[in-house]
Amino acid sequence: MGTPVETEERVRYSETDQMGVAHNKSYLEWFEIGRTEFCRRKGIPYREIEAQGFYLVVVEAFCKYRKPLRYDQAFIIRVTLRDATSKKVVFDYEILTREDRSLVASGYTVHIATNARGEVSPLPAPVLDKISAE
Amino acid sequence: MGTPVETEERVRYSETDQMGVAHNKSYLEWFEIGRTEFCRRKGIPYREIEAQGFYLVVVEAFCKYRKPLRYDQAFIIRVTLRDATSKKVVFDYEILTREDRSLVASGYTVHIATNARGEVSPLPAPVLDKISAE
Amino acid sequence: MGTPVETEERVRYSETDQMGVAHNKSYLEWFEIGRTEFCRRKGIPYREIEAQGFYLVVVEAFCKYRKPLRYDQAFIIRVTLRDATSKKVVFDYEILTREDRSLVASGYTVHIATNARGEVSPLPAPVLDKISAE
Amino acid sequence: MGTPVETEERVRYSETDQMGVAHNKSYLEWFEIGRTEFCRRKGIPYREIEAQGFYLVVVEAFCKYRKPLRYDQAFIIRVTLRDATSKKVVFDYEILTREDRSLVASGYTVHIATNARGEVSPLPAPVLDKISAE
Repeated sequence: MGTPVETEERVRYSETDQMGVAHNKSYLEWFEIGRTEFCRRKGIPYREIEAQGFYLVVVEAFCKYRKPLRYDQAFIIRVTLRDATSKKVVFDYEILTREDRSLVASGYTVHIATNARGEVSPLPAPVLDKISAE
Repeated sequence: MGTPVETEERVRYSETDQMGVAHNKSYLEWFEIGRTEFCRRKGIPYREIEAQGFYLVVVEAFCKYRKPLRYDQAFIIRVTLRDATSKKVVFDYEILTREDRSLVASGYTVHIATNARGEVSPLPAPVLDKISAE
Repeated sequence: MGTPVETEERVRYSETDQMGVAHNKSYLEWFEIGRTEFCRRKGIPYREIEAQGFYLVVVEAFCKYRKPLRYDQAFIIRVTLRDATSKKVVFDYEILTREDRSLVASGYTVHIATNARGEVSPLPAPVLDKISAE
Repeated sequence: MGTPVETEERVRYSETDQMGVAHNKSYLEWFEIGRTEFCRRKGIPYREIEAQGFYLVVVEAFCKYRKPLRYDQAFIIRVTLRDATSKKVVFDYEILTREDRSLVASGYTVHIATNARGEVSPLPAPVLDKISAE
């Protein structure tokens, strides 16, 4: 559904652990950076979605770690929209090395649309249309 | 496989986000705290496994978020060993509120045994026996 | 001003970096854990201060790192109230090893009292009295 | 000592807390990103300094927080070398909004040069020369 969006980052020193590689929790933060850029480039920054009173709450997250990333290594977060309805949105992710675009990790997150009180609240059509656009 | 191990924690202020709840990445850190306590109570602290030159590298992580946790809320990390061979170990997790043990989140992590260079390296029997003990 | 409050923690794996020691940012999170326990034991949990509409915003933080802490090492966060008025509160911290109470790090944070919109808003006397109590 | 180096970042969602602003610990991570870029642009990436067996261990960190940053807000990390000898290096930092370069926070970190075992170990002249270059 629509063109994938890619964002480039580098592994922060604070993201490494004593094994000398990026810690597994960092990938969920990177997925989130990817979602932020995805929404921005589709024309509806996520902070504007929240400003309208809607939240895409994470209800499921999965990551498969294929090979490690090291401090200062440049990588790409590639985000694809797998599915989007007014109630549920699913994003797929790939983490690739910048050097040769080899696959570092892949995963997905499932989100439900809520209001500020955490109650299910369908996304308005204009928001959904933008996210789902080519 | 063996008795589950429970650890109690509280949500740190730094673990909340602007939705006012614990951020999704924190759960992976909590799973890890649970694993540390699991190994300790089975008689083989994880830092000793690493001191012997073995690492349980995370190759897969999954979490289903069922309801939010708030700042300072007390919760329980319940860890169960699902499967353990010399090459692969799988842990299941439940996050429960301390107040009424209601389910907040559940998930799992899959680990492969490696040496310090990240090469597959089967766990020695004494380590495996302790982790798998009742 | 009043009795110091001590809290015990262990270094999380996710708090280490590739030098094999706890990362410098973690100390600010530990200071915060110490403040949370300080307020609780003085009889006014910080989440209740916020529920009343008051925030102790960090305006200055300092830490002197004297020796490293390693994964799974147990340590003590010792918090002392240095100064407290309705507008400004200053906490001092010491991080000590649990093993022999040797000094790992020391520091302080300065806070101003604000409302939810971030505007200066003097702490009510009952809150100030509790924080400042022996 | 030499030209300041500027790096641009955006506040991650995971860096906000329940006050709706970037958490105080994030600034230490941003200072570190700034140092990484400082060294790279002076011609000696920090990972190469470590590859040569030298570490710039943080022994002091200070931050003064002047106004908040919000999710997705773009900001600049401006790093200036205050002092550098073979044994000790001091960096000054300013965090500025990208929008109008207004001052968000300022601070410094003090580092000592060590080897991989954490023992004091003077920086080689070529490294020091590059860091200190205009």
